[in-house]
Amino acid sequence: MNAALRVAVLGASGYAGLELLRIVLRHPRLELAVATSEQRAGTPVGEAFPSLRGLVSIPFEALVPERLPGRVDVALCCLHHGTAAPAVTALRDAGVAVVDLSADFRLRDLAAYERWYGPHKEPRLFGRAVFGVPELHRGAMRGAGLVAAAGCYPTSALLPLVPFLRAGLVAPGPVIVDAKSGVSGAGRKLEDRYLFAELDGNVQAYGVANHRHVAEIEQEAALAAGRAVGVTFVPQLLPVIRGIATSVYFQPSAPLSTADARAVLAEAWRDEPFVRVLPAGEAPSLAAVRGSNFCDLAAFADARHGTVVALATLDNLVKGAAGQMIQCLNAMQGWPETLGLLEAPLAP
Amino acid sequence: MNAALRVAVLGASGYAGLELLRIVLRHPRLELAVATSEQRAGTPVGEAFPSLRGLVSIPFEALVPERLPGRVDVALCCLHHGTAAPAVTALRDAGVAVVDLSADFRLRDLAAYERWYGPHKEPRLFGRAVFGVPELHRGAMRGAGLVAAAGCYPTSALLPLVPFLRAGLVAPGPVIVDAKSGVSGAGRKLEDRYLFAELDGNVQAYGVANHRHVAEIEQEAALAAGRAVGVTFVPQLLPVIRGIATSVYFQPSAPLSTADARAVLAEAWRDEPFVRVLPAGEAPSLAAVRGSNFCDLAAFADARHGTVVALATLDNLVKGAAGQMIQCLNAMQGWPETLGLLEAPLAP
Amino acid sequence: MNAALRVAVLGASGYAGLELLRIVLRHPRLELAVATSEQRAGTPVGEAFPSLRGLVSIPFEALVPERLPGRVDVALCCLHHGTAAPAVTALRDAGVAVVDLSADFRLRDLAAYERWYGPHKEPRLFGRAVFGVPELHRGAMRGAGLVAAAGCYPTSALLPLVPFLRAGLVAPGPVIVDAKSGVSGAGRKLEDRYLFAELDGNVQAYGVANHRHVAEIEQEAALAAGRAVGVTFVPQLLPVIRGIATSVYFQPSAPLSTADARAVLAEAWRDEPFVRVLPAGEAPSLAAVRGSNFCDLAAFADARHGTVVALATLDNLVKGAAGQMIQCLNAMQGWPETLGLLEAPLAP
Amino acid sequence: MNAALRVAVLGASGYAGLELLRIVLRHPRLELAVATSEQRAGTPVGEAFPSLRGLVSIPFEALVPERLPGRVDVALCCLHHGTAAPAVTALRDAGVAVVDLSADFRLRDLAAYERWYGPHKEPRLFGRAVFGVPELHRGAMRGAGLVAAAGCYPTSALLPLVPFLRAGLVAPGPVIVDAKSGVSGAGRKLEDRYLFAELDGNVQAYGVANHRHVAEIEQEAALAAGRAVGVTFVPQLLPVIRGIATSVYFQPSAPLSTADARAVLAEAWRDEPFVRVLPAGEAPSLAAVRGSNFCDLAAFADARHGTVVALATLDNLVKGAAGQMIQCLNAMQGWPETLGLLEAPLAP
Repeated sequence: MNAALRVAVLGASGYAGLELLRIVLRHPRLELAVATSEQRAGTPVGEAFPSLRGLVSIPFEALVPERLPGRVDVALCCLHHGTAAPAVTALRDAGVAVVDLSADFRLRDLAAYERWYGPHKEPRLFGRAVFGVPELHRGAMRGAGLVAAAGCYPTSALLPLVPFLRAGLVAPGPVIVDAKSGVSGAGRKLEDRYLFAELDGNVQAYGVANHRHVAEIEQEAALAAGRAVGVTFVPQLLPVIRGIATSVYFQPSAPLSTADARAVLAEAWRDEPFVRVLPAGEAPSLAAVRGSNFCDLAAFADARHGTVVALATLDNLVKGAAGQMIQCLNAMQGWPETLGLLEAPLAP
Repeated sequence: MNAALRVAVLGASGYAGLELLRIVLRHPRLELAVATSEQRAGTPVGEAFPSLRGLVSIPFEALVPERLPGRVDVALCCLHHGTAAPAVTALRDAGVAVVDLSADFRLRDLAAYERWYGPHKEPRLFGRAVFGVPELHRGAMRGAGLVAAAGCYPTSALLPLVPFLRAGLVAPGPVIVDAKSGVSGAGRKLEDRYLFAELDGNVQAYGVANHRHVAEIEQEAALAAGRAVGVTFVPQLLPVIRGIATSVYFQPSAPLSTADARAVLAEAWRDEPFVRVLPAGEAPSLAAVRGSNFCDLAAFADARHGTVVALATLDNLVKGAAGQMIQCLNAMQGWPETLGLLEAPLAP
Repeated sequence: MNAALRVAVLGASGYAGLELLRIVLRHPRLELAVATSEQRAGTPVGEAFPSLRGLVSIPFEALVPERLPGRVDVALCCLHHGTAAPAVTALRDAGVAVVDLSADFRLRDLAAYERWYGPHKEPRLFGRAVFGVPELHRGAMRGAGLVAAAGCYPTSALLPLVPFLRAGLVAPGPVIVDAKSGVSGAGRKLEDRYLFAELDGNVQAYGVANHRHVAEIEQEAALAAGRAVGVTFVPQLLPVIRGIATSVYFQPSAPLSTADARAVLAEAWRDEPFVRVLPAGEAPSLAAVRGSNFCDLAAFADARHGTVVALATLDNLVKGAAGQMIQCLNAMQGWPETLGLLEAPLAP
Repeated sequence: MNAALRVAVLGASGYAGLELLRIVLRHPRLELAVATSEQRAGTPVGEAFPSLRGLVSIPFEALVPERLPGRVDVALCCLHHGTAAPAVTALRDAGVAVVDLSADFRLRDLAAYERWYGPHKEPRLFGRAVFGVPELHRGAMRGAGLVAAAGCYPTSALLPLVPFLRAGLVAPGPVIVDAKSGVSGAGRKLEDRYLFAELDGNVQAYGVANHRHVAEIEQEAALAAGRAVGVTFVPQLLPVIRGIATSVYFQPSAPLSTADARAVLAEAWRDEPFVRVLPAGEAPSLAAVRGSNFCDLAAFADARHGTVVALATLDNLVKGAAGQMIQCLNAMQGWPETLGLLEAPLAP
């Protein structure tokens, strides 16, 4: 057995960071060396987060990028956009490999970035990261120094859509992406709408046709289609902790049956360990992917009007965040992508 | 004060029936005379359903239509399709006014009915009921003997869509209706997927592009548009007891801004007591309509791709079932439609 | 019909305040004249709280006690302890009747108050309010100027316990009160533990054997028993918006059967419109009281060890807060206590 | 690495059985050889249960005990009481080691068994199994052929109580056990009360002071105390999928402070890998143990009345069922008890 890779989790007290700790703990080739949190610096991880009591012995520390080289081999960055870029750049300069979950390095077009996120804080590496969905870009990941793991919404929209785009099966005109997300996707934010008393029994759209993640979706859709693809994206908040359920609607460029549509997905993802195309007639559920790195897919065609409906579910904290980061890291290292990730979902 | 109207609730032990009992109890001009339930016949209502203990003194009885005339003035029918038609017909023959919640009398086209529901059990009155959304058909309700209250999904799809169809603002091509429903919409069914352990934290589509309610939606959409309108309808089950959140997507026939789209709804429903078009920028929520007869609406236009997104929320047991039935009954009687219905939602 | 009583709701943007607005709107003899909120002053109520859109036309205003006399006849005060006392005192000085939901006037013993809440901000009226559980103190309410509505936990503990204490059926030794509360009981607080992602699927005790409400429970228990009664009180937070389920355990001073125990409750509360003692064998549920002013009770005896288990459920925002305040107000006015309150619970 | 132990999971389509499959899949020394289900016989496991799609290749088979010897080394039995006894006995006769989750072999006293469960179907091995809580009986587990894993409620009651009983710190008189359980503890039962629409937002006691599990609790409590211990046990159903939160109340035989009480637990369970005694002042939560084999404990003393309050949380499907069974199996094999079980809880 080779020596383990020493890992720093940056922003480890947020929900994605905590999920990374959970996964790093069971990963056979990773060793948790550093966990940073500005608010919790000095507090043992297992004291701040009772679920990890007895499992993690190190304390949180404040992030000082120049103190990490020599102590860690790789940094898993869960900092917010804006905060991430300078830290990531400093770590890359010092030779530390980085998987970044922020938006700072996902896009190729700086204007698009600045439209949605404001001025970039440190654009030197902008456009040079691998877009972090291994199913789309694993070829570029091996040996890469910086992977920008995709967001949870884009992953759930792209996996059911890209095969149709690549096959030239999507007619011109906007693709509709109606996405519903569990609340942990927003992080641990103290806002009224995330309170149990406000969210339980509730569903509400937000950022209607005006949410940042559309930039990523359109970038990767265009790459897959070889042409610009317009996406109307409507996210909605669910009374659920974990999980995204996404419905993608488009008119096909040529008539497709439900069987045809399903076959497009099944063929495209045939060898993927984490993408499960369901048997005909089944629709994906959040429960079947909870706590796991799976993304479940199905496709249907409206027999009367032709519309193709492609459905995806994933756990936003795993395949939509921490699991995807580890899958990217595995790919960067040339390890089996399933390492530390092939757990059964928690059902019920 | 006139004498109260004597009401029979048929199928009163299901969720819609129970909700009717709740509303009838507070309605100033209705008196609960009969509550039927085959399974609970003989049991006092307040004993079978602890929420109603002390509030309802009559027992459930088995439904024998010929025993109702003389005892009741109006029947509120929550029987299943197939079971409803013979009972409704018998009651109409005996001069009892009926508001029916089943699918048996909602459609105009018998072939469409039989495609989705199988052979009609008693088609004599088929096509002769008023379609039960007062906002669409109140003119025909006054004095009508039979109103077929619309289903919860169609109501949530039609109220945000019809104004655009009437105004000729919807381009040809399928309209997308992505609808998410609380579980009480399915009634009190003992199936695995409705168990708490299966549904909590879960979301799953069903009947994808193949759900019966599309027939009602397309019927009323065509009526509003003056042309056939194709609808791709995808329902999804939410871990929520009450509420439907529906997203309607279409391409406009001419460019619309978000302000334009909102104005179409606001203008169309300006005088409606139960339709609230939200201020610009707000999206409707389930919480804001819980337990009430309101339907909250909003509309947005995708500034980049033109798609119009019209959103609706309602409580499927109230505006989607029992409340709508009472609103129809009020309209049939020529009473203010708000009678017994203008309660504040239960929030939080 | 007499003219309506003009009501001010103080602290109307909290959960109890909002629930008061909901009830005042349907109360036939109350008119909402003023709703105060420091944070929302100037914003129309129905804009700040979408559930009330279209139902309330007045804006929130900042509380200035001296501006209320002449505009209102009664104040329903949902301010925090400490803040409430000076406002209540000023209003009483100006002749405005007050129902106060804070802890500032519930206790008789200033030392007990200061032990749990710190120095009293305005003790002039301390000890002179009627303790606001009409089932216990309605005799003193008629014509009273100040009623201190009981907290949600104490109400849920006292209604199942007091009949046994009054009858001398409780052996010496601590009474155990194990109470579980929905999160709205804590108000709209932005703390981590109230976030959906933290609370859903979760249950946790807090303030174990050290919660302020024990002072109220013991005060009223002693009054009922004619001796000091020790109460070990353990509250727990539930993943539920509304509702308290309380289990009271004690050893009886003489052997009681389950039938005996049930009879004690049934006899004591026989004429109460809002206390429902369930049939033998049934246990109360939160669902059966949701949104209503009912308190459901049951009692059992452990056939093997003698312990009496008395169970209660109520909706903490209604019988535990806003509904109780209105019931107190009805009693103060000499109106039927059920006025505006006899609604069926929202089930399911 | 030794060859893996071949495992049969009996009754594998219930919730405890599914959880066993999840754990067996990640256990380094177990190999899933057989999964039985009468209803699903012939269906591939991953087809019947979408969470396991792609992870389990074998189909369910009907249970025929005589076909298992030679194919499996150990059977993990999740059959119902009554059904379990004959199967377990047949397997033991054939030399297959068994961990049984039913009640058929947990008790020592046949009269007690028959009082709660009716006539025993196959009592030959009755009284000869090791009671399956490794923290209490691991000494007898090594090499044992039959372990009767304790139920979820008893485990959650005994771990916080036994140390006090062993130390002689519990005064005579009934111990109160107020326990709240997630719904998966009842298995996948199609009953009204387990429907989402009935249980969400709801809490209700059942089997008040009359639940079968009290027999196990009292048996083990007596063993620990060296005297009979009466337990008044009240279970309650929570709107939660997984988790039990138990409050144990007793009067101490000598005054204890909170620090004393905590020290009793901390000392007793000092070396246990799965029992976490929380720091002073913290109360256990369901969230901190979700999906894990941990049991979190705390103890408090009521400073005013002396009552000791000992609190426990665990995941009823893991430490209360499948995880405990695997921990027992590990102990039977002489393996580290943490094998396959030391996963971080799923939080949030």
